[in-house]
Amino acid sequence: MRSKEASKLLEQVREQKPLIHNITNVVVTNFTANGILSMGAAPVMANAVQEAADMASAADALVLNIGTLNDAQIEAMMLAGKAANEKGIPIVLDPVGAGATAYRTETARKLLEQLDITLLRGNAAEVSEIAGLESDIRGVDASGGEKNMEAIASHAAKTLNIAVAVTGAKDAVADNKCLYSINNGHSMLTRITGTGCLASAVIAAFLTVTEKTASGAAAALGYYGIAAERAEGFASMQGPGTFQIELLNALYHVGEMDFKQQLNIEKEILDRGGSTHE
Amino acid sequence: MRSKEASKLLEQVREQKPLIHNITNVVVTNFTANGILSMGAAPVMANAVQEAADMASAADALVLNIGTLNDAQIEAMMLAGKAANEKGIPIVLDPVGAGATAYRTETARKLLEQLDITLLRGNAAEVSEIAGLESDIRGVDASGGEKNMEAIASHAAKTLNIAVAVTGAKDAVADNKCLYSINNGHSMLTRITGTGCLASAVIAAFLTVTEKTASGAAAALGYYGIAAERAEGFASMQGPGTFQIELLNALYHVGEMDFKQQLNIEKEILDRGGSTHE
Amino acid sequence: MRSKEASKLLEQVREQKPLIHNITNVVVTNFTANGILSMGAAPVMANAVQEAADMASAADALVLNIGTLNDAQIEAMMLAGKAANEKGIPIVLDPVGAGATAYRTETARKLLEQLDITLLRGNAAEVSEIAGLESDIRGVDASGGEKNMEAIASHAAKTLNIAVAVTGAKDAVADNKCLYSINNGHSMLTRITGTGCLASAVIAAFLTVTEKTASGAAAALGYYGIAAERAEGFASMQGPGTFQIELLNALYHVGEMDFKQQLNIEKEILDRGGSTHE
Repeated sequence: MRSKEASKLLEQVREQKPLIHNITNVVVTNFTANGILSMGAAPVMANAVQEAADMASAADALVLNIGTLNDAQIEAMMLAGKAANEKGIPIVLDPVGAGATAYRTETARKLLEQLDITLLRGNAAEVSEIAGLESDIRGVDASGGEKNMEAIASHAAKTLNIAVAVTGAKDAVADNKCLYSINNGHSMLTRITGTGCLASAVIAAFLTVTEKTASGAAAALGYYGIAAERAEGFASMQGPGTFQIELLNALYHVGEMDFKQQLNIEKEILDRGGSTHE
Repeated sequence: MRSKEASKLLEQVREQKPLIHNITNVVVTNFTANGILSMGAAPVMANAVQEAADMASAADALVLNIGTLNDAQIEAMMLAGKAANEKGIPIVLDPVGAGATAYRTETARKLLEQLDITLLRGNAAEVSEIAGLESDIRGVDASGGEKNMEAIASHAAKTLNIAVAVTGAKDAVADNKCLYSINNGHSMLTRITGTGCLASAVIAAFLTVTEKTASGAAAALGYYGIAAERAEGFASMQGPGTFQIELLNALYHVGEMDFKQQLNIEKEILDRGGSTHE
Repeated sequence: MRSKEASKLLEQVREQKPLIHNITNVVVTNFTANGILSMGAAPVMANAVQEAADMASAADALVLNIGTLNDAQIEAMMLAGKAANEKGIPIVLDPVGAGATAYRTETARKLLEQLDITLLRGNAAEVSEIAGLESDIRGVDASGGEKNMEAIASHAAKTLNIAVAVTGAKDAVADNKCLYSINNGHSMLTRITGTGCLASAVIAAFLTVTEKTASGAAAALGYYGIAAERAEGFASMQGPGTFQIELLNALYHVGEMDFKQQLNIEKEILDRGGSTHE
């Protein structure tokens, strides 16, 4: 992916300041809202069934995150999701902890069935669980290397028939046709809570300015990865407390020049018979 | 306003360490509690209907913030509000997102009707919505300049017949008699979440040590604005992550000398026929 | 306590990365999760009655924190607690605000009665309230000096017949046989929210690698106190915002050498007739 194409999307987000409606877990609300503000978009959180649909109708994208579920929140997610589908705005589903309890796995599947989800973003274990990939990719370490993340993303995209982003130290995004390998990022992202949840919100913001879901998500994760690299550059091993703060700073500062110098995304065309490098 | 008068209130807060009971949204709980601690007061959060009244009865001020409402929380707010009124402690209402959904607008109005609210604190759009000012101030950009904020504050104070604080990069506070223009503050306050919510709590703390609501609120916002200026001085464009941390540091450190050097509040006497500068 | 014994426990935590299930208040979720990650363990939050037992069964320790209670959460605590007892994993109870409202005091007592709690961790006022110590230690300032904290810890351990940790600027841990005085720590811990809550989670992580509850908890608090000392060393009076960040950094960095240089824990053997210094 050319850096210009990716940085143009970020510029558009910053110009349009899209409103991102988050129905998310109580662990990451503050960090998510601050991350969205830092990148130049506008966050709103609203969980009540009485207003979830109204808020989604006023928003430019919706993020559904199941990190601290309860039944009232699931109902609010359904109402907000239907309003979002009606309005035609993108929905990103973040299935936090799918596989850890039946409640989470079943809720994630129900949301995928009953709503028109634009993109699923999870770690390797969560996405594998949702897509029922254990048997297909037996022996694969779900938390494992880049190659596996790419296999999981492309398999899940095929199975679920939506765009899928698998994130970790590095990330992969796939739809039915393409696979993007995002080689930006930093392992410190795994040492603070909510970095995956924030990645979902950053993707949602990018999807408000492009119809090309997979490439838009890849650009978003490239931006996020560059921000993480910059953050650790400034934090320089002071620790995860400082890294968290520097990540917010970096989301605010990263721009065209950083994309030009650092963006590292590979694109592969997928076809039925196999795959071809572009 | 003389800096000595304002800094004296902060000193009294730090001596008396008033307990501020917050029924607030899940996005800002941590930041609000840390901000209250940093300034020298004591925070408590308690949302359950089973204990909301008990906690308000033990507190020195109550903050009601509708940022992530649900029906149980509204019931808790009513119970806590009635207990606060009975005890005679100040209540600050923060109508986060009023106007964004009917649920929020109606809840804010219901709280204003059924409780004796001491002060309403919101941004220009929220306060305009609550006070029904759209038709009165047609053509006014709700997010706009200082002049509009002052007009909104004084109109809303007249309409609602309570003290009103309108905050943004700069702030205005009005009651039926006076209008205060607070020229302290920094635009970085709009780049992190919860700075308005924390402003409400800071005002509540100041109102525990004075009966003069409007001037007490103006002093509180002067202090908060000075802290923001100091914070950005230290953060020096590192970004919103660092600014958030430096704001907590500044709330802890700002004292008499800072008030003397930086406080910039203008007071105007309002009367029926017009307004006179004092 | 020898530093080697204590630092060995931390090493084991970092090797085994135990999963700590927290049912906790909405003020401290993010800080607690990040603190657990910083020390090298793994956090999970799950409050719903539909999954609380499943999550506890998958975890290595459970923390029950009553800081922002509601009835659904109490039910979830009971279900998770029973699952934890069945599996035989440690439970730490953090009775935030016990004594402030009847709802909190009664809930804390009910949890102690109906579950097999491994350790109670609170401040002096909370522990005194739970253990009904007002009459026994009349005239004692509950928020007071080290000597009182030790008296409260040993009295409460005897009365409740479980291990008890009383924390403040300094800490005390007692069971029926021993009393540990932890002379590490820093007063800045009282200027940010959630440091007590995080201490409970750090203790829970240590209890996953030892059966010796009181000495394990003392080692955990020694580690936590050393981290606080290191944090204020780096924050060097910049304020509570910076201290919060440096505490997360310090939990990440503190290791064997720091224990060797700084750990300061005294152990006293308690017996029926009195107490003997070891």
